Amino acid sequence: MISDLNSIFSESAQGMKRSAIREILKLTQQPDIISFAGGLPAPESFPVNDIAEVTQEVIQEKGTAALQYGTTEGFVPLREELLKRYKAEGLDVELDNLIITTSSQQGLDLLGKIFINRGDKVICGLPSYLGGLSAFRTYGAQLEGIEFDEHGMRSDMLEAKLKAMKNAGEKPKFIYIIPDFQNPAGITMPEFRRREILDLAHKYDVLIVEDSPYRELRFDGEAQPMLYQMDGTGHVITLGTFSKILAPGFRIGWVMAAPEIADKFVIAKQAADLCTPPFVQMIAARYMEKNLLEKNLKETINAYRIKRDTMLEGFRNHMPDGVSWTEPEGGLFLFLYLPDHMDAEAIFEKAIEKKVAYVLGSVFHCNGKGQNTMRLNFSFPTLEQNKEGVKKLADLIRENM
Amino acid sequence: MISDLNSIFSESAQGMKRSAIREILKLTQQPDIISFAGGLPAPESFPVNDIAEVTQEVIQEKGTAALQYGTTEGFVPLREELLKRYKAEGLDVELDNLIITTSSQQGLDLLGKIFINRGDKVICGLPSYLGGLSAFRTYGAQLEGIEFDEHGMRSDMLEAKLKAMKNAGEKPKFIYIIPDFQNPAGITMPEFRRREILDLAHKYDVLIVEDSPYRELRFDGEAQPMLYQMDGTGHVITLGTFSKILAPGFRIGWVMAAPEIADKFVIAKQAADLCTPPFVQMIAARYMEKNLLEKNLKETINAYRIKRDTMLEGFRNHMPDGVSWTEPEGGLFLFLYLPDHMDAEAIFEKAIEKKVAYVLGSVFHCNGKGQNTMRLNFSFPTLEQNKEGVKKLADLIRENM
Repeated sequence: MISDLNSIFSESAQGMKRSAIREILKLTQQPDIISFAGGLPAPESFPVNDIAEVTQEVIQEKGTAALQYGTTEGFVPLREELLKRYKAEGLDVELDNLIITTSSQQGLDLLGKIFINRGDKVICGLPSYLGGLSAFRTYGAQLEGIEFDEHGMRSDMLEAKLKAMKNAGEKPKFIYIIPDFQNPAGITMPEFRRREILDLAHKYDVLIVEDSPYRELRFDGEAQPMLYQMDGTGHVITLGTFSKILAPGFRIGWVMAAPEIADKFVIAKQAADLCTPPFVQMIAARYMEKNLLEKNLKETINAYRIKRDTMLEGFRNHMPDGVSWTEPEGGLFLFLYLPDHMDAEAIFEKAIEKKVAYVLGSVFHCNGKGQNTMRLNFSFPTLEQNKEGVKKLADLIRENM
Repeated sequence: MISDLNSIFSESAQGMKRSAIREILKLTQQPDIISFAGGLPAPESFPVNDIAEVTQEVIQEKGTAALQYGTTEGFVPLREELLKRYKAEGLDVELDNLIITTSSQQGLDLLGKIFINRGDKVICGLPSYLGGLSAFRTYGAQLEGIEFDEHGMRSDMLEAKLKAMKNAGEKPKFIYIIPDFQNPAGITMPEFRRREILDLAHKYDVLIVEDSPYRELRFDGEAQPMLYQMDGTGHVITLGTFSKILAPGFRIGWVMAAPEIADKFVIAKQAADLCTPPFVQMIAARYMEKNLLEKNLKETINAYRIKRDTMLEGFRNHMPDGVSWTEPEGGLFLFLYLPDHMDAEAIFEKAIEKKVAYVLGSVFHCNGKGQNTMRLNFSFPTLEQNKEGVKKLADLIRENM
């Protein structure tokens, strides 16, 4: 082995730790554990037969193209299908606004590559998606967290932060927002709050990253307009993905941005993986062209609504006083608040003994806070696991209050 | 638009230019141009029917797993199939040595992320694969080029460089080598040169990156041992890919390294795309399990040998005196040397007018040299295009001598 290996790793790599979630997920892969810890879509939501059929069509009709290199920007018919959906919502977007990425996690990584110099500041929510924070950290970002209220990121505290930074001659590279059914909090930002945040972005001339993997999984309530649409000034970069609406196994995401920014994504992506697998891009495009996505989405939404309702009902029936939780209108997750003095980490081992698992809310807090919180996933477990797991969790909390 | 967009891009992104090759490839996509410029495998080498069959089996038998998230390390049966092949060659490798990447380009990107701090030095060949150089540059690497002779990177000049760096208190992060059928030069490093380079890596305690996308495409001559195998001390990181032996459309590569290094790749990859599409990994694994790879490889090798021979024969028959070229024993490319005073860029437009295209050799030279060289691809064009294109190219050169 090379001597003193650690010294030759980059600064980024020296700081790289195996993700807390990942290590937890390993623990929770014992088959008898009811896991609310993951973030997996329900396997029963995957349209296996439709995909089998579409895949055969693609291989038979354009097999050699599907197996060859593709363009870095992505397969044009797939981009056009995505644009069609956005245009139907009223967005003003064209081909040069949208590029395909190999998962929206790659979008987050490329964001880091394009914008972050070591030491640059990025504003994120308290809490915020760990995969986003990890991606930005590998580029040396310093994360500045803004507290949440029931409407998501607090605009008053965001303004205070932006003002303080301005006074110090600083400016964040972007504000990282997950406006719909936020991971991990399960909160959706209402239109007025989106407007406040956007106004601040315009006033302080800062980019917003709108990470939007769950938007189409709305169970009830009114859709709120996308930040991208409300903006109209090129201050918003939106990330999307097929992982939650079709299949994570394809690893297809996309980035929507002003052409000048989309162009940098293309160049950065070229050095990252040349192109996203044309094979899966063509399958996804054909799947959309056949209007199969809407059908599958409807079924997924109905199934997830029942799962969410089951979890909320379990909470109401079993959780001791002093425990509260968010009630998401869509998505995959909700957030649970223990009484302030309790620590979700302190009871984690006992939870595993009881055969139930969750993710510590603290890992989503870039300031290390959130000890009394946990993220719970309701999309993956079956209804039976959901009911039983909630009881186990309620018992655990009651016993440790 | 955000004001002064360029100022908020990272240092890397400010330096990002659209790749010269990419722009050239656009020019060459006019259908009547005979292009030796690309680096595409022959579409007729793709085993479309076998892949159709294997894909159906995978979807029918494990559709939900193929459509779900997978582990960051990669699909275990695929890794085991790859290990089996390496073990058959005599390599001492286990599961914790090998992880799957989303194309070997991602392997190059992760190398940058793991090892390169802005300003760090990386040693590469003159010439060297542009995608590697681009990946390292996005992390701010300073590239130090070492001249080639007919055996590849010159060990005397490498030692001089390593010694000079040591005297200056510096050390490169790694030495980037493509030992078999090098892109772009088409040169294969004989065992004695590999030994010299390895001895230097050990003496100066420097890592070697062995980028090996073409190794299995050997048309004739003896296979030379892999640097990974000759080393045995953890000084070599090897990158592999399915792009040239099965299908680039899958975007599956792999990294082989000491477990301590492979582990950093896993963590870095997690923040880059979480996992490589399980869907395509499972297809590739099943394809290998059914022993289809060897059959397809044999056919591909036979077809490429004929294409190479056709190109070489065309050169011998048509090229004017003063032009020379490499005669690769495998791979996809050869390198052509014009007389020293000629400039491949100066005649490029005329080449396009003549409906023939190549890549400027200078883009593969990190020191900006190589003006009299061009890279020619023989895997993609048909035999007819090959013959006609070589004549056009010979005419062009003769007319401009």
